[in-house]
Amino acid sequence: MSVRRATGPCRWEGVEVRAYKGEATHFAGVTRQVLFEGSARLPGQWRYFEVAPGGYTSLERHAHVHAVMVVRGSGAVLVGREVHPLAPQDLVEVPPLTWHQFRATGAEPLGFLCLVAAERDLPQHPDATQLAELRRDPAVAAFIRTGETPATP
Amino acid sequence: MSVRRATGPCRWEGVEVRAYKGEATHFAGVTRQVLFEGSARLPGQWRYFEVAPGGYTSLERHAHVHAVMVVRGSGAVLVGREVHPLAPQDLVEVPPLTWHQFRATGAEPLGFLCLVAAERDLPQHPDATQLAELRRDPAVAAFIRTGETPATP
Repeated sequence: MSVRRATGPCRWEGVEVRAYKGEATHFAGVTRQVLFEGSARLPGQWRYFEVAPGGYTSLERHAHVHAVMVVRGSGAVLVGREVHPLAPQDLVEVPPLTWHQFRATGAEPLGFLCLVAAERDLPQHPDATQLAELRRDPAVAAFIRTGETPATP
Repeated sequence: MSVRRATGPCRWEGVEVRAYKGEATHFAGVTRQVLFEGSARLPGQWRYFEVAPGGYTSLERHAHVHAVMVVRGSGAVLVGREVHPLAPQDLVEVPPLTWHQFRATGAEPLGFLCLVAAERDLPQHPDATQLAELRRDPAVAAFIRTGETPATP
């Protein structure tokens, strides 16, 4: 089919709403839809992610780049050591090997389109040393979510 | 900048609104914005096109594939010999070497995101023989716009 219709806000005919990832990484309330798989003639995979209110994507980095456009809701993103608020149609570029995480901060889900190379490396997740390094910056420490039980103060 | 904000509906900081193409092809009322240029780490170019009411993109085909999402307005698209109406969030895939054209049919502009391979072939435009062949199908003949003066009946 050359045309697949929207069946509702950010839902499409023939596009399955999937769990974001396996259980090995820490995230909360995220779904994933692959809009275009990519091919030799179009070497990019185009996805739509939706993060439930209060939810977050996994904190990760990788050599491949993310090109992102926010579609619905509001939220914030960590890119490197910068935290930016996000609103519909804002664009985000995540450079290679840069720690990043998206969070939904409003009352409705945060939805965004995300383009990646069809052939790409696997994400890396921070080990304890990298996490401690990230947390030296108070703004980063306050932002990131790892699914861990908070340390006793 | 890792984040570029939307400055209004389908306008972004640091993104220039350009003419669609040179004058060699027939189109009307179309602008083009490159949202992400693409790179070795992301071999796709992500663009936003906006077609003014009554306007149309050039009738063309090429070996590379288009992945499209409608963002605003209403319109219609020719893909091969099929004409489909378009509404926001509808998805369109244009296969290799398939004649296609987008038209804005409503009162507001038709805006769509379009993803292509960063390295791709140039579009081909129909010659008189190909145009005559396309026009054998009455639905296609009624749809396509080429900027030519209509033949005297």
